[in-house]
Amino acid sequence: MTDTFPAPEAMPIDLDIEAALDESREARAEALLEFARIPSVSALPEHAGDMHTAAEWIATRLRNLGATEVEVIDTPLHPIVYGKIHEAEGAPTALVYCHYDVQPVDPIELWETAPWEPFLRDGRFVGRGVADDKGQLVMHLSALEAMRTAGRTPPVNLTFVFEGEEEYGSESLYRWIDANEARLAADVAIISDTGFFEGNVPAITVGLRGIMYAQIDVELSPVDLHSGMYGGTVQNPANALATIIAALKGPDGRIRIPGFYDDVEPLTPADREALAALPFDDEAYREAIPVTKLVGEVGFTVLENKGSRPTLDVNGMWSGFTGDGAKTIIPAHAHAKLSTRLVAHQDPKKIFDGLERFVASVAPPGVTVTTTFIHGGDPSHTHTDHPATQAAARAIKAVYGLDPVYIREGGSIPVTAAFTSQLKLPVVLLGFSQPTCNAHAPNEWLELDNFERGTRVLVRLWDELATLQR
Amino acid sequence: MTDTFPAPEAMPIDLDIEAALDESREARAEALLEFARIPSVSALPEHAGDMHTAAEWIATRLRNLGATEVEVIDTPLHPIVYGKIHEAEGAPTALVYCHYDVQPVDPIELWETAPWEPFLRDGRFVGRGVADDKGQLVMHLSALEAMRTAGRTPPVNLTFVFEGEEEYGSESLYRWIDANEARLAADVAIISDTGFFEGNVPAITVGLRGIMYAQIDVELSPVDLHSGMYGGTVQNPANALATIIAALKGPDGRIRIPGFYDDVEPLTPADREALAALPFDDEAYREAIPVTKLVGEVGFTVLENKGSRPTLDVNGMWSGFTGDGAKTIIPAHAHAKLSTRLVAHQDPKKIFDGLERFVASVAPPGVTVTTTFIHGGDPSHTHTDHPATQAAARAIKAVYGLDPVYIREGGSIPVTAAFTSQLKLPVVLLGFSQPTCNAHAPNEWLELDNFERGTRVLVRLWDELATLQR
Repeated sequence: MTDTFPAPEAMPIDLDIEAALDESREARAEALLEFARIPSVSALPEHAGDMHTAAEWIATRLRNLGATEVEVIDTPLHPIVYGKIHEAEGAPTALVYCHYDVQPVDPIELWETAPWEPFLRDGRFVGRGVADDKGQLVMHLSALEAMRTAGRTPPVNLTFVFEGEEEYGSESLYRWIDANEARLAADVAIISDTGFFEGNVPAITVGLRGIMYAQIDVELSPVDLHSGMYGGTVQNPANALATIIAALKGPDGRIRIPGFYDDVEPLTPADREALAALPFDDEAYREAIPVTKLVGEVGFTVLENKGSRPTLDVNGMWSGFTGDGAKTIIPAHAHAKLSTRLVAHQDPKKIFDGLERFVASVAPPGVTVTTTFIHGGDPSHTHTDHPATQAAARAIKAVYGLDPVYIREGGSIPVTAAFTSQLKLPVVLLGFSQPTCNAHAPNEWLELDNFERGTRVLVRLWDELATLQR
Repeated sequence: MTDTFPAPEAMPIDLDIEAALDESREARAEALLEFARIPSVSALPEHAGDMHTAAEWIATRLRNLGATEVEVIDTPLHPIVYGKIHEAEGAPTALVYCHYDVQPVDPIELWETAPWEPFLRDGRFVGRGVADDKGQLVMHLSALEAMRTAGRTPPVNLTFVFEGEEEYGSESLYRWIDANEARLAADVAIISDTGFFEGNVPAITVGLRGIMYAQIDVELSPVDLHSGMYGGTVQNPANALATIIAALKGPDGRIRIPGFYDDVEPLTPADREALAALPFDDEAYREAIPVTKLVGEVGFTVLENKGSRPTLDVNGMWSGFTGDGAKTIIPAHAHAKLSTRLVAHQDPKKIFDGLERFVASVAPPGVTVTTTFIHGGDPSHTHTDHPATQAAARAIKAVYGLDPVYIREGGSIPVTAAFTSQLKLPVVLLGFSQPTCNAHAPNEWLELDNFERGTRVLVRLWDELATLQR
């Protein structure tokens, strides 16, 4: 471990567990590499078999940890892994969530190394999924393994639910939760799929944006048309798509879909003060990406725009000839995938309906335009002063010697809202990746130091939660 | 041959030649199929070898026809095929131009048959290049072969120049012309790379639009960014590209680049009357494509917009994630290929400069936008009453029994302007494909009847040209 952080001041971590973690250091790193070698991409049908392999990989380890009711549950898409370690009668129960699916690896040519050949070098794991979210899942398994090695019984009851569709809308998990609420009964949910604050500041996430993901298809004709023979007489679907997309957002960064902001709760002065107090340097953030200039919705700071305001982004767009050289066609069709990040109280379905109506209203004549819902996830918000959140804060302080900061994250973990609103659980979003870890991008990485310390935070978390009244 | 057209009234075609054409009917069809099997795509580097194969295929046939100085001339890109049949001392010399390169075949999945396995069935050739422009090149070779078989000497002197970059801007041919004007000395240029009028009305093209082809690249960051972590704080390059493209053209169909129309000669009342007199049915044109609705620059008829007004079309566009499912990224970059079709007096370079300035002026902040010139071709215009044009009209009438219509075509043949302005040649654009032949699109086809009659028109053309004073 490096000396980046002050030494822990509070209760030192259990010495037997520390010895077990020291002993298993190489094996734990190898476990993450082995897990990350499985190309479990939920979005691509050709990886369906890999999804099963990854699920079984987890189930085997849960069984080895003495978990009961371990099950790889088939769904219409990818399996859910379930298991329990309920050995602390009378103690609180924590529902532990991570996901084992990862994002696609394209653009593959921008990876400096092979995405499915992960490695640990110079204090970093590199490969698809090492940060989002396999590293965090392995930290949970590692923390428990160290407890077992040290002869300790987990002081809280743990119910594990690891899903394979987090990057694809969590539809199967939603349905499974509907039918299995009793199996998920708990006092708190611990979700490890977030990260630290800018640079590497330990953080607990208290707000997560929701998401609405859609596709716009613009059709002109059955085949591409010769741009000289037909140009000037037919609507070009790529130009039409550009017109539609351009209409969605103004130069002020505001989304122009009527009603889009209706359910957005304004930031209170207290919210804004809390965000402003965070150690965030716009210029350092800009340089770390890097981009030439930050932009955003006018009237809001970078940090406010980053996690507390809704957004709309094209995620992909394609039409016509995209090879080298020149092809003089009017494309037969044009397509865009786009998503909105939503803040508390915005409803993905309602936002989609607004998008669909707006797209129809601005679509140029002469083409057929269709807007399709792909997936959605509700936004969520938890309170800084909840006892479970404070237990997690103490666990962080014990390992890092620092109080965590409380942040709102721009990303989405669809199931969070289901845990909150359906299972009525307080949710603690406790994760250990760094903001610049290239989640969803080429060359994804995870700091070994965060992997090591994060594992210790989780050990400590169970101790802290055990002290809480049920 | 079908009975679509009235029987020729004027001089019947030479009976020996007719016999030779009847005799060679199957061999000529097979020659086109053989030629079309060579995947000579100029835009794609992997077809460089096929370009040579196609060039040699032509050269062999020119030699067999007794042509002299036959040469496959290497260029920085694709070869030019040159040759002469100068056996008519004192008679005019015609410079004959066709191109042997073809458009790429994507989207390959929309071909009903394999594009490189052309066939003749139910009176149609189908395959990439059968219409644009290999069929027409084979008609020229066939007409001469029939003359040879019939023991006749071509009554005009013929200089052949067949290029392999027509679909790629003709850059190598331009340069070769600069250095070889003497080898191209002639009295008239015959370019066979156009087609008949709507439906299948015999036509001579007297106006061709020019072209300016460019690419717009929008760069945000070295890698794709997580749309949740960065959304709302960075400029999305795909949204930015859409904003730029949307700004290029108004809902009135007018191009908004300042100065774009400065050099456009207004259509005269006579021009408009002549166009209005053509047998053109907007609704039949729309249904043949088919599209739901025709659009165009306001204030102009469909036919005026089709060939007599400049246009701007996106030819291709790509950014970010384009696979199945969903990937929540802000793309690192976004790209568009676009082209403008230009009318008489518009200068491709000047139009590009205007585009480049305009794109820079409307580019949103936070991204780096580059506009790159890919290729250009000047527009051209020839006069209906030129003796060479009238000779071609008589050749058409001799075979089809109809006077041709005179049309302005929306497409571009870049070299036309070089023949006109540099070599000072009158140009006759005499071609035989049909407007709906899917040139540049999947399932390209050529009517066998046009192939047969077109070959006869060319035989007759040489006779008609021979009667002209030099």
